[in-house]
Formats: sequence, structure tokens, C-alpha cells
Amino acid sequence: MKRIVIKFGGTSVGSIKKIINAAKIIKKRHEENNEVIVVVSAMSGTTDDLINRSRQVSDSFNKTELDVLMSSGEQISSSLLAGAIIELGIKARSWLGWQIPILTNDNHASSQIMQIKTDEILNFISQKGVAVIAGFQGVSKENRITTLGRGGSDLSAVAIAKFFQTDSCEIYTDVEGILTTDPSINKNAKKIDKISYEEMLEMSSLGAKVMQPSAVQTAMTNNISVHVRSTFSRKSGTKIISESDIDNRRVVTGIAYSKKNAKVSIVGVVDKPGVAADVFEPIGKNNINIDMVIQNTSLDGKKANITFTIKQEDLKKTLSIIEKNKKKINYNKVTHDDKLAKVSIIGAGMIASPGVTYKMFRCLADEKINILAISTSEIKISVLIREALTQKAVKALHKVFGLN
Amino acid sequence: MKRIVIKFGGTSVGSIKKIINAAKIIKKRHEENNEVIVVVSAMSGTTDDLINRSRQVSDSFNKTELDVLMSSGEQISSSLLAGAIIELGIKARSWLGWQIPILTNDNHASSQIMQIKTDEILNFISQKGVAVIAGFQGVSKENRITTLGRGGSDLSAVAIAKFFQTDSCEIYTDVEGILTTDPSINKNAKKIDKISYEEMLEMSSLGAKVMQPSAVQTAMTNNISVHVRSTFSRKSGTKIISESDIDNRRVVTGIAYSKKNAKVSIVGVVDKPGVAADVFEPIGKNNINIDMVIQNTSLDGKKANITFTIKQEDLKKTLSIIEKNKKKINYNKVTHDDKLAKVSIIGAGMIASPGVTYKMFRCLADEKINILAISTSEIKISVLIREALTQKAVKALHKVFGLN
Repeated sequence: MKRIVIKFGGTSVGSIKKIINAAKIIKKRHEENNEVIVVVSAMSGTTDDLINRSRQVSDSFNKTELDVLMSSGEQISSSLLAGAIIELGIKARSWLGWQIPILTNDNHASSQIMQIKTDEILNFISQKGVAVIAGFQGVSKENRITTLGRGGSDLSAVAIAKFFQTDSCEIYTDVEGILTTDPSINKNAKKIDKISYEEMLEMSSLGAKVMQPSAVQTAMTNNISVHVRSTFSRKSGTKIISESDIDNRRVVTGIAYSKKNAKVSIVGVVDKPGVAADVFEPIGKNNINIDMVIQNTSLDGKKANITFTIKQEDLKKTLSIIEKNKKKINYNKVTHDDKLAKVSIIGAGMIASPGVTYKMFRCLADEKINILAISTSEIKISVLIREALTQKAVKALHKVFGLN
Repeated sequence: MKRIVIKFGGTSVGSIKKIINAAKIIKKRHEENNEVIVVVSAMSGTTDDLINRSRQVSDSFNKTELDVLMSSGEQISSSLLAGAIIELGIKARSWLGWQIPILTNDNHASSQIMQIKTDEILNFISQKGVAVIAGFQGVSKENRITTLGRGGSDLSAVAIAKFFQTDSCEIYTDVEGILTTDPSINKNAKKIDKISYEEMLEMSSLGAKVMQPSAVQTAMTNNISVHVRSTFSRKSGTKIISESDIDNRRVVTGIAYSKKNAKVSIVGVVDKPGVAADVFEPIGKNNINIDMVIQNTSLDGKKANITFTIKQEDLKKTLSIIEKNKKKINYNKVTHDDKLAKVSIIGAGMIASPGVTYKMFRCLADEKINILAISTSEIKISVLIREALTQKAVKALHKVFGLN
């Protein structure tokens, strides 16, 4: 007998019909002689609707009350799903975060799980019951409802896999698994059978929204293998596992991209310690996320140019912040560019494969795509290009790195 | 300083705009130097939506899970309302049933409140905080969410008034108070300033849906005066109080009615003990509500006729149940009639006023309205008439008993 945690995302329980479908999958997994713990997200659309209502009350709606509001979404889906499983003749019950309890800190709207009590649920599943746990929520030691932040049901599933020491953690979602790139811009996108945690982190932060990055991180830290699979097909999905468990790997696992980027270059800043902090501190304090950062020294070694990318929507505000801090930063001029895209090749194998960087740049050059900025990590190379060329770049890279 | 509980019904918080309006009323009451405990229903429409979803899963949706589902409605409204009060600069927080806790028995979907813990909330309101309590819900000693049955937020409010020993219990709703009759069929309907618990019980079970009967009963048992008033006007509303606290009372307080009734007469049953049980037991077991019951003996004293009324929609099923039990009941024949209405005059004063019965029947006779059945209690006289004559009867009685 195996103990499994299976998580259903919002689109997998997005209607009563889909909830009944999920209940049938659960029944099947239960009949395969598993001890089954289910984690469920809110029905798709619910969370947005609740956020929208809170915003109608206030743009700065009290976070503690927001958690009470938001957690109702998973309360609805978990009770409906438990009811649907019972309707199929299987013993089941729902557990809300406070009932288990899933103890978190009191950092409302983005709480961290501290501890999960297991005895009641272990007892229930050992007696052939299916435990249905409302994802995304917990309770603070002050007895208030907390939530784990957007997409937090993935995090619930991984943490439950950890505390209940389950044999597997399966994420049922609306896609077949992790793909080599976005199928909407490249029909040659293929499903990846196995991907390392690190690669998955690079993929998800770049827009492959299959699994929440912090959930992948928790899985990595606790060495929990995660199986992403489709609620709507029987195909095998993608396993997210340790790099060391992946054999015969490709140099490049996938091609990710993000659109609507803007680039800002601050030209001729005095090259002394603290100048980067002077530039980025006021921007960060305004909740603007900086993505790529490139700093290079000018020829005379006394002045530097700092280039960074941000979301297009933040461009105007960013420029005004820099202008306001002109005296403190002390620069010659600022240039900017928008309608840019970042395209990245990701692969844990590239660290051991010289020539990947060269191959990428050659490929883009052959396609006459100009590179506006480059940033690299051990398992990723990202380039900034004109947004209109995104599809062309992704298709060419996908082919060159043997993913077609 | 007074301690008050104020309850807002579903229509009073039926939109974000209305929630903000309710928050303003609460602010005003708080600024009047009251310790304020708020009880709130689900936003109108929510409960029906949730029930509808559960029915799509199953007609016999598990009751324990249904309570988890249903309680989310008040979770949403209580957090939104608490957030809206905070937005007005007043300290506030929401409490769900399990957080207080409001301890109930485990009779899911219609639980009874056993105990309410008061210390945390008393501490909060003594420090100028407004406590917002989700109505309708509690928690069982098994730590499962329970609900008090449809309209149970009234019951929550009265029970909270009892356990917190508040100085008043106010029910904010979408009407100005209790009216002498339904204004949609008689524009001369007037607001009643004071009504006794007993009269209110007769009024509410007859269709004046302002307050849940079991809440009125709890208020009566604990001698808690209830003030029904409008969320949308500043008028004074109706006070529901002890009969002994009402002076200068009218003989008749109000005229109630219910439509879509049917009448069944079982003619020629043997007049012996147990015959009524033989008739009504199988009907009751099929969850059909019997309203009026009239039994009279035939001329020879050996056979009796039993007449009773039910909802029109239950007529077909009732007739088939009687037919199935023909041998056991042992009767000559069954007659029935539908499209009937019950019209009642209600007034605690009528017990001391001879001639009320006569006056009612004379009034209906003058209007050429035939009476098909009569039933009386100490504070109510009900007659069964053809449904088409309802408005005519109500208008005439309203005038005759001085309510215009």
C-alpha cells in the first residue's frame, strides 16, 4: 500500500462536471490500494472574484480579513469534492486548514507553513477514508485563517507530502505536463518526461505557470519528487526530480520567454561602490521588480553604464524615480526601450557542455535577430530581443537544440 | 455605555455598495458609545447558489459537507463587512463560528446552539473594537462546521444577545418592520410598532418572512426584546416584546395569508382511537407538512370525517398515500380541492374580546366569500377560502378590524 497526495488545480475543479470527474480519478487511485490525501484549489475564477470584491471595498483591504475571504474559495471546492467522492460510495471528508491544523506564521496573504498535525488524517486514511484538504490555507497560532499566497495550493501539496511522508506528490492540472516551450507560439513543443527542480524553477519563473516556484523550491529542499499530469488525459506527465536522478539528458531542456519587457540604461554613472544600491533602492521601494541587470565599465574605467529590465507597465514610473534621484545617482543620461521580450534556453546539462552560448547566439544571428542584452546563470542563458521576433527566436532555438 | 447586537440580513449586505452602507450604520452605532457586536448573513443569492451547486453533485449531498459549503457564504460576508468597517477607520475583526466558538450539537444542517464562549469578544469590544460574527454557523464538539438551518442568522443574533447579555438585539432588514398585512395585496398595510412574541410567531409561520420563527421562539424563552428595522431608512421599525409590555393594544394586530393550499377530506372513517394516527403517520413519514386539521363526527356518531390542508404541490402524493393505506384507514371516500388560500387574523387581544370570531365570519359573508374550513387558536383565527378571493378577504378584514 502506498500513501499518495494528489492535488487538483483550479481548472481541474472549475465546474461541477469537472469536480465529478476529479472524484472519479480519486476513486480510481483509491481502488488501486493507495492511502489517498487530496489537496484542492478553489474552482477557477473564484479567487479572482473574491479579490475583485475586496478591491471594491478598498484598494488596501485588511490582509487578515482578506485571508478569511480568500480561504472560502477552497472551502467551497473541498466540500463539493468531498461530497462528490461520498456520492461515488467512498468514505471521504474535507479538512480545512484550521481543522488539521496546518500551522503557519501570521504573515497574512503569504504565510509560511510551520507544522502540520497528522494523526487525525492518518487515522482516517488508514481506515480507507479519502482525506480532502483545502489547499492554500492554514491557521496562525492566534487562531486566525492564513493563506500561502497566490498558487499556494501547490505549496500545500508539497508540504503535506513532506509532513505525511507520502510516497508521491502528484499535481493534476489542465496541461499534459511541462512542455519544452509554449505550444501557442511553437506547435513543435514537446512534453518533457523528466525535469530537475532547478530547471523547473527557471521555467516557472519565466512563465511556464504549471507549478508555483516556492512549491518547487520546497520540493527541492525536501527532495520530494513531484509528478505533474493532466486531469483530462491518461498520459504520463512530467516528473520533477533531482538532477542526479535524470539520465541521458539533453543539454537544453526547454525554451522559455516573457513578453512586455522594457529596458533602461543609465549611462555614465560614477563607478564607485554603492552606486547600484543608489539606483535600485528607490525602485525596489516602489515595488517595481527588476529582472536582468547588466553593468559594464566605460572605456576610461571611471564611468559605468547600468542596464536593467523591468515590466513594460513599470517603465514610466521607473523613469520618473530615476529622474527624481538624479543628483544622488549622478549620471550623464538615461535611455530606454520597450516592446522587448526575454527568451531563455534552460538546461541543467549546459554547464558541462561548452559551446551552448555560442550556439545560441549563432542561431539568433542566422535569423537576423539582434540581441539587446544577455544574462546567464549556470543552467540558463537569457537574451533580450524585440518582442515582435519572439516566436521566430523560440522556434529557431527549439529546433537548434534538438527539441522538435 | 450599552452593549448591542445588530444583525444584517442577506439583502442588507447583498452587494458591495450595501456592505459599505451597513458599515456606515455600524460606525454610527459605534460612535453612539455602544459596545457593538454585529451578526451578518450571507450576501443575498449566495446561499441559493451554493445549494444549487451541491444539488448538481447530488440530490442527497452529504449534510456534514453541505455545512462546510454553506458556511462559506457568511465567511465571505463577514470578512468583507469587517474589512469595510476597518476602511472607515474603526477597529474591527470577523469571527467565524469555530473561532468563538459557537458550540452546537452535531445535527448538521439544523444544529442547535449549546454554548457560546464570550471572553475573547468581550475583551475586544471593551477595547472599542467592533466584533463581526458570521451568522448561521457554529462548530460541533467533533470540530466540524455546523449550520443552524435556513434563516439561522436570526437565531445566531438572538443567541448572541442571550450569551453576551446585550441590552438590545436589532435585526436590520429590507423592510421597515412588521406590517399589518402584505402590502403587495393591500396598500393600506401599516407598520406595527409593537408585537408580542406569540403574535410574531403566528405572523411569521404564515408568511411574514421577516424573522425566523425559531429565533422568535428563542427570544421569547429568554425574554429578549427584538427590534426589527430597516437598513435603508431611519424609521423606528417594530419591537417584538412580551405581551405584558404592550399597552393599548388592538384586538387584531395583523392579517396574514398563504396561497397554494389544498384540502383533503376523508369521509366516513370509523370513529375509534388511533384513526388520526393511521391517517397522518404515513403522510408525515413522506415529509409532507399538514397544516389545518378538522375532525368532526358524523350524525350517527359512528363514522367521522377528517379534513386537512397541505401545500398544493403535495396533493398528488398525499392522495396516493391515502389510497395505498385504504385498508388500514378504512374509509368510504376521499374528496379534495385545490387552489385554496388560508387567511388568518392574529391578535393577542382577541382572547379577551368576545365577538371577534363572529365579526370575521360576518365580514367574509358580506363579501360573499365562502368559508371552506376554520381553525382557531388563542391568538389566531384561520379560514380556508378560494385562492382567487384572497386579496378581497384580506382588504375587507384589514378594514373591519381597524388596521387601515
